[in-house]
Amino acid sequence: MLKRYLLAPGPTPVPPEVLLRMAMPIIHHRAPDFIPIFESAKNRLKWLYQTNNDALILTSSGTGAMTASVNNFFNQGEHVAVVNGGKFGERWTKICQAYGLQVTEVTVPWGQAVNPADVAGALEKDPSIKAVFMQAVETSTGVYHDVEAVGAVLKDKKDVLFIVDAISALVAHDLKTDAWGVDLMIGGSQKGLMLPPGLAFLSVSAKAWEKAEGSKMPHFYFNLKKERDGLKKNQTNFTPAVSLIVGLDAALGMLEEEGLGAVFARHARLANAMRHAVSAMGLEIYPIQSPSNSVTAIKAPEGVDGQEIYKTLREKYGITAAGGQDKLKGKVFRVAHLGYAGTFDVITAVSAVEMTLKGLGHPIKLGSGVGAAEEILIEKRTS
Amino acid sequence: MLKRYLLAPGPTPVPPEVLLRMAMPIIHHRAPDFIPIFESAKNRLKWLYQTNNDALILTSSGTGAMTASVNNFFNQGEHVAVVNGGKFGERWTKICQAYGLQVTEVTVPWGQAVNPADVAGALEKDPSIKAVFMQAVETSTGVYHDVEAVGAVLKDKKDVLFIVDAISALVAHDLKTDAWGVDLMIGGSQKGLMLPPGLAFLSVSAKAWEKAEGSKMPHFYFNLKKERDGLKKNQTNFTPAVSLIVGLDAALGMLEEEGLGAVFARHARLANAMRHAVSAMGLEIYPIQSPSNSVTAIKAPEGVDGQEIYKTLREKYGITAAGGQDKLKGKVFRVAHLGYAGTFDVITAVSAVEMTLKGLGHPIKLGSGVGAAEEILIEKRTS
Repeated sequence: MLKRYLLAPGPTPVPPEVLLRMAMPIIHHRAPDFIPIFESAKNRLKWLYQTNNDALILTSSGTGAMTASVNNFFNQGEHVAVVNGGKFGERWTKICQAYGLQVTEVTVPWGQAVNPADVAGALEKDPSIKAVFMQAVETSTGVYHDVEAVGAVLKDKKDVLFIVDAISALVAHDLKTDAWGVDLMIGGSQKGLMLPPGLAFLSVSAKAWEKAEGSKMPHFYFNLKKERDGLKKNQTNFTPAVSLIVGLDAALGMLEEEGLGAVFARHARLANAMRHAVSAMGLEIYPIQSPSNSVTAIKAPEGVDGQEIYKTLREKYGITAAGGQDKLKGKVFRVAHLGYAGTFDVITAVSAVEMTLKGLGHPIKLGSGVGAAEEILIEKRTS
Repeated sequence: MLKRYLLAPGPTPVPPEVLLRMAMPIIHHRAPDFIPIFESAKNRLKWLYQTNNDALILTSSGTGAMTASVNNFFNQGEHVAVVNGGKFGERWTKICQAYGLQVTEVTVPWGQAVNPADVAGALEKDPSIKAVFMQAVETSTGVYHDVEAVGAVLKDKKDVLFIVDAISALVAHDLKTDAWGVDLMIGGSQKGLMLPPGLAFLSVSAKAWEKAEGSKMPHFYFNLKKERDGLKKNQTNFTPAVSLIVGLDAALGMLEEEGLGAVFARHARLANAMRHAVSAMGLEIYPIQSPSNSVTAIKAPEGVDGQEIYKTLREKYGITAAGGQDKLKGKVFRVAHLGYAGTFDVITAVSAVEMTLKGLGHPIKLGSGVGAAEEILIEKRTS
């Protein structure tokens, strides 16, 4: 028996309490026993989102909600800006272009965070830009983009929607949807929310709803206005993934019990411990600035293939982390500390990396990374 | 404690074996342990579909696959025909119109099955029609439309796609996708397949793929050509509902063990027993012809409100069945015998209906329906 651990940036482990809630007999989504569960999940989601706006629940992967963010609010030919600093920034561009939008890319070198002044510059250069799309955490590079700072740039732009893919950031980062002026904030179930994949979330501001009135793009499955109307009756437009919504309420209940501040502090502490361990092992994190609290991208040391590290972690030590994507393939490996994650997930990850690198012939002092992580974890330090 | 039973036409009960499979620790969709599960589920799905075509697995409700059936294959302004004999026929029209298709409706009075000659007539009247959309089972009325007969009408129409929503029919009815020339056959997880909602299925013929080449409609989340390419590597384009796919393989494994013929015979027998019980209780089924093997719509007797029957079944007897939709609200109630269903689900349903009607003041001989059902069930009669 090789005991297995899931330390990838989504899907993440689901707490046994939640798995068992979802294993209870299925209930009917139009019957009275579903209504209070949906209502509770809906309200808890707004709490997590720190929003008074509607927070819609869709049955799809996060990319479904990203698609809906385009085809419910815009018209062909409209100008938008996309912050592109990795694979998921690229995805925004692809979605916008698939629907015929004119995209100005604010290109960010991989491993760096967006400079809010570059967003301001793009808007100045093209005043017809109607939206800024970005990630909170760019999963491919492990960078956190400063949502608050970009929000400040957009504060007085009455005609510009601020659309944030927070799929990998939610729960790990303190995201103030309303206070920072985010018009659409997108989440997914299989990351910080500690659920299997299959649900996507989307908060929608009054300003976004107003813009939606002018959109003529066809849509049917992702009809957000109808979802909004359903939400008032604690219903979705079509049959939702009932068991995942039952799990959503349970998982949010766990986070609620922990408290929002404590949840963010836990993620900050785990990420901090991981980064200290990386240094202590003589390795480097990939981000040049603003590393996320969700996932740490670590450079493969000179002469070691990152994919070999990924493979050894998995095959020899039972740990499913993640390799590098696209041009980072072989150059980095990524370890998440996201959702149902605690002290000994970091210890396990660091220990496995130490043994893996040693085994691959890289000089490393066993225990050096673990010791450094412990220095942080013993004190609950977040920086 | 009121012991609860789910006898609605979706969601349907999930077998405990499947619930527990899905409650196992989550695995990563890009890691090697997921691949054989996905491959097995994919192949078993083709077996159920009786097809050599691709059978795609989407993370959405069935309506997601219906939407994808429109926006991946057609262009705005194209002419199509929709068989409309109930709420879900209506939905085809709405989806097609949302995407700007010109719809000719082959209207079927509620409670009746489509006359294939009417489909032929519509095609003759408008030779520019590029597709016929229909349901196999129209859930709102409980009618089975003769897919084979409509397929025969379309046999030599090289320019017409045959698109069947089999969401409520799959598993309960013998549907020969390839032999009957169905180009797109749509299924959902929460019906005959004995799973929670959250997955949709879609088989695509070579003819449909060819038609897709000419489609210019924008789409991103539901990009079926990309899903087809992924299928070859046992992958989905975006993060799929991993736990539901694990459950899909388990549920299909159970059906495989039973055997396809036995699965269809079981549903035919249960439906037959239900219909005999309805007559014996002095009630009438709603369909005038071709009642489905998935769900039986029963007319509320004169002077009794169908919604009262639904409510009493639920509140007094713990049975979640379904009321009537739209113009049938209050006039019918519906009981499913679909998926994880056996002899004593029918007995339970009939017994509850007897006690409910008696309790609502309707003259009925207790045990009369149950006795009639037993006459069928003791012999495994399918007609």
